[in-house]
Amino acid sequence: MSDFKAIGKAFIDYYYSKFDAGPREGVAALYEPTNGMMNFNNADFAKGAQDIAEKLRSLTFQTISHTVSTMDIQPTYDNCILIVVTGALKADNDPPMQFTETFLLRFINNSWLVINNVFRLILHG
Amino acid sequence: MSDFKAIGKAFIDYYYSKFDAGPREGVAALYEPTNGMMNFNNADFAKGAQDIAEKLRSLTFQTISHTVSTMDIQPTYDNCILIVVTGALKADNDPPMQFTETFLLRFINNSWLVINNVFRLILHG
Repeated sequence: MSDFKAIGKAFIDYYYSKFDAGPREGVAALYEPTNGMMNFNNADFAKGAQDIAEKLRSLTFQTISHTVSTMDIQPTYDNCILIVVTGALKADNDPPMQFTETFLLRFINNSWLVINNVFRLILHG
Repeated sequence: MSDFKAIGKAFIDYYYSKFDAGPREGVAALYEPTNGMMNFNNADFAKGAQDIAEKLRSLTFQTISHTVSTMDIQPTYDNCILIVVTGALKADNDPPMQFTETFLLRFINNSWLVINNVFRLILHG
């Protein structure tokens, strides 16, 4: 899988452009419909595209903009692609916040879909 | 795989205690020997336990201490375990720095081994 870097980069560009353009729950279509998992800054994950869409809809900000600082992309043993992003986001009129986000992509039915996803804000302590 | 959280937590505790106790390249034994991958704060990955050990040995700090702030653990489609850590580390007499680290573990020959690993310092911009 020599093109994992190009696939990973294209996915991230598409994901955040779709997320930021809104409606943000539109990215739920990029997850494996039944078993795709998302942890959004807390201990319990949403599972399946429908739960993920609901979780995204429930977030309280109106507008958001992601800026990617680093992107590390690796092929995996099981022909998946692991992507780790760090960056900053700006939600509504809040100060910018740093975040890290990990995606595990799997090729299913001719598409690269998210099977695992973890988002975390970086809290400066 | 109902015990993925316990396995993930035990792995992280062991990994950082071994890393911090030193010699840090000892953690290379926790990677899949041939294909395990590690990105350590840059764009190219080390592949295989030997390269990973060399990369770790080449780092310039003498002492390090990791403190975990958050740990998100998910089972994957392929019976692996995905772990995303955020936390702080202190190397030698440098100021503490924040980091994020992702591990993908796979059960191979009766052990949970790292098949993919990405470490990134969080740079405050």
